[in-house]
Amino acid sequence: MSKVEDRLGELGIVLPQPAAPVANYVGAVRSGSTVVVSGQLPFDAEGKLAASLVGRLGAEIAPDAAKDGARLCAINVIAQLKAVVGDLDRVRRVVRLGGFIAATPEFTTVAAVMNGASDLMVEVFGDAGRHARSTIGVAGLPMGACVEVEGMFEVE
Amino acid sequence: MSKVEDRLGELGIVLPQPAAPVANYVGAVRSGSTVVVSGQLPFDAEGKLAASLVGRLGAEIAPDAAKDGARLCAINVIAQLKAVVGDLDRVRRVVRLGGFIAATPEFTTVAAVMNGASDLMVEVFGDAGRHARSTIGVAGLPMGACVEVEGMFEVE
Amino acid sequence: MSKVEDRLGELGIVLPQPAAPVANYVGAVRSGSTVVVSGQLPFDAEGKLAASLVGRLGAEIAPDAAKDGARLCAINVIAQLKAVVGDLDRVRRVVRLGGFIAATPEFTTVAAVMNGASDLMVEVFGDAGRHARSTIGVAGLPMGACVEVEGMFEVE
Repeated sequence: MSKVEDRLGELGIVLPQPAAPVANYVGAVRSGSTVVVSGQLPFDAEGKLAASLVGRLGAEIAPDAAKDGARLCAINVIAQLKAVVGDLDRVRRVVRLGGFIAATPEFTTVAAVMNGASDLMVEVFGDAGRHARSTIGVAGLPMGACVEVEGMFEVE
Repeated sequence: MSKVEDRLGELGIVLPQPAAPVANYVGAVRSGSTVVVSGQLPFDAEGKLAASLVGRLGAEIAPDAAKDGARLCAINVIAQLKAVVGDLDRVRRVVRLGGFIAATPEFTTVAAVMNGASDLMVEVFGDAGRHARSTIGVAGLPMGACVEVEGMFEVE
Repeated sequence: MSKVEDRLGELGIVLPQPAAPVANYVGAVRSGSTVVVSGQLPFDAEGKLAASLVGRLGAEIAPDAAKDGARLCAINVIAQLKAVVGDLDRVRRVVRLGGFIAATPEFTTVAAVMNGASDLMVEVFGDAGRHARSTIGVAGLPMGACVEVEGMFEVE
């Protein structure tokens, strides 16, 4: 078993089956030593989007719930990455995460929500998990989800 | 004539003159084997933005019209790509599309709109057209357009 | 002194201390010859976000003020880039800027705001500063800022 997967086990994280392509796009693409992962929604281990994660920050959704959602997104990002790279020990660096938070214009703490994804990357990959990041508040996301996270990785 | 351009012909698609730089940015940049294409609006073959594509999903714009708009954006992405790479047969992979859909907070089917761009890439490039993708609903876009698509490609 | 830093001096631009990591992400990551810079807010040289840059275009914020804000974001992008690459003369190309403008749905001139960042890149890097770009209007940004800019660079 790989070191990164050991670490996932210690954290009690079971990677879900990566969501199958539902259209003419795929979960992740490798180009050279870069893997680009599609924006992932906060589906749980059964592939379900909890009703408590549908809505906007500043309205129906509380920051702590959305932060947990961002962590779920990040787990799904790792699942898509693994489907392309095979062994997660071949990940050299988390290069970038993009965080999209469905929010009202008045909600200004989108960065704290996104920390749920950033923290997970460092828990799993250690220092190699420290990444560049952009976080924005958006009008809406697919299926009404409150958070979506995309990723870029350097791999062996 | 190249295979990809043959395919464009079969699809009845005439690539427009790529929009000239209107400021201190350009339509696309090559870096190594990667080409990054600027966000493209749904200009038609004459370079016009139809009034029917100005507004938001969930308000003035119907999903089918916006899906056609996303296809137009994708055609403009390919035109910018061709201006940099020359022969489109040198495209090895559509790595990523980013889709921005101007939408009300209540509109949750932004992914279906973006399929207009994703489908076009596979029609034109075949399996090499299957890409990673992030789609978000945004407050607004340049010129009030309802959709904007950016791209990343691997080329020879 | 490097040529690019000479140019910054001629422009009267003092690069700020790049913002320290406030969470499990960093200001910029190098992967191969690519540097990805995290989304930067319009902090001034003292690291403060002016109250006049908190709000949305189409509401509290005027376009000219936001354009100046976009220029500040771009200066902070360059500061983060320098922290990773050392000598700014090693920058071969500004590959891409992403511009996020907090705006009401009615505000349609987000591109003009973003020109504040694009113009700065060409003032500093000359033709190598011409980049691919995507600009979108968003619901909100960290700390309520009216503009955020991220970057991708090719370096030696």
